[in-house]
Amino acid sequence: MAGSRKDVRLRLQNAALELYAERGLDQTTAAEIADLAGVTERTYFRHFPDKREVLFDGEADLQTALVEAVADAPALPPLPMLLHAFLSVVPRFQSDRALKERRHRVISATPELREREAMKLARLTDAITGALEQRNIPGPLASLAATCGIGVLTRVRLEWLAGTPHSYATLLTDAFGDLNLLFKEAESPNPATPSRPTSDQSPDAR
Amino acid sequence: MAGSRKDVRLRLQNAALELYAERGLDQTTAAEIADLAGVTERTYFRHFPDKREVLFDGEADLQTALVEAVADAPALPPLPMLLHAFLSVVPRFQSDRALKERRHRVISATPELREREAMKLARLTDAITGALEQRNIPGPLASLAATCGIGVLTRVRLEWLAGTPHSYATLLTDAFGDLNLLFKEAESPNPATPSRPTSDQSPDAR
Repeated sequence: MAGSRKDVRLRLQNAALELYAERGLDQTTAAEIADLAGVTERTYFRHFPDKREVLFDGEADLQTALVEAVADAPALPPLPMLLHAFLSVVPRFQSDRALKERRHRVISATPELREREAMKLARLTDAITGALEQRNIPGPLASLAATCGIGVLTRVRLEWLAGTPHSYATLLTDAFGDLNLLFKEAESPNPATPSRPTSDQSPDAR
Repeated sequence: MAGSRKDVRLRLQNAALELYAERGLDQTTAAEIADLAGVTERTYFRHFPDKREVLFDGEADLQTALVEAVADAPALPPLPMLLHAFLSVVPRFQSDRALKERRHRVISATPELREREAMKLARLTDAITGALEQRNIPGPLASLAATCGIGVLTRVRLEWLAGTPHSYATLLTDAFGDLNLLFKEAESPNPATPSRPTSDQSPDAR
């Protein structure tokens, strides 16, 4: 079986998902993944450096797209700017739900893959921080905004993978709206005042 | 050399830091770490399951302390509640600066250790999400608040490791204050209005 670069990589990803779901990452070799995808082991390693990376194909492209979207967003405060940027790449987020859902299940069940995913998110956070700094947002604010933005992306992805009827754009907009509530939303059943505590209300701050 | 459990673990951590800084993680064996710490390899593996975990000693205790602090915090909106919780464990954050600084340098330079650290932060985020949910904060808000809180902890830790003259409590309070600015702080040099964009301002949302 031959095929375009993109096609080969997708076949390898599907084969890896199938084998990892069936027997787990540890009990699967790159040669077996290659075999199931109809290519040689050598071809596998031409595309992916290890057995984990095959499930993160496209992450680098997503990062590039997000960084460019931040660069192109209108001048807005950091979080509205990120919302705008994320909305502009919605088609990329909402493709291939079935594949992404299988992938999510396999990653969640495998500590080594969760570790790799956490690292990817940390790198994406750094990249978005850098993109915000390029927009003249000071570093300490940029890193906070990027972390909150990644929190939004993580939550929205889970909602979408779970089969929500809402559009990705609605989910993103709602999640950014919720960020705004985090200082105000009262804990039930004892509604608190919406003010932030000052240091003299925090005895441990002394 | 004998010693208390805590003392042995600290000696192993110091030995690992020394060897990882000198030759790197890959060129160091657990037996060499144990030897430098004056214990047997068997003792090493009684304390740590692998060569990475030795640098993350105390993370589980920190997680427990943070979860308890959230449980004990007064009824406040999610982020002020987290600020209160974090302030109550400040002594834990600000101990052993020299050791933590060495540790940070070694981890930053070693992808496998950065991966493990990213995973620890993801687990801590999950634990704080759960603690907020126990305080009756709905899951979607809790996970966003936890992610933003971890963003604050990450930033403040870097500021503190870099030798800031400010107290940990001040750094935490300032960082939470900055979260409040993320919707408002204008990008310079072109100050934007503090309003959030609505979906009709985002052509890509359609």
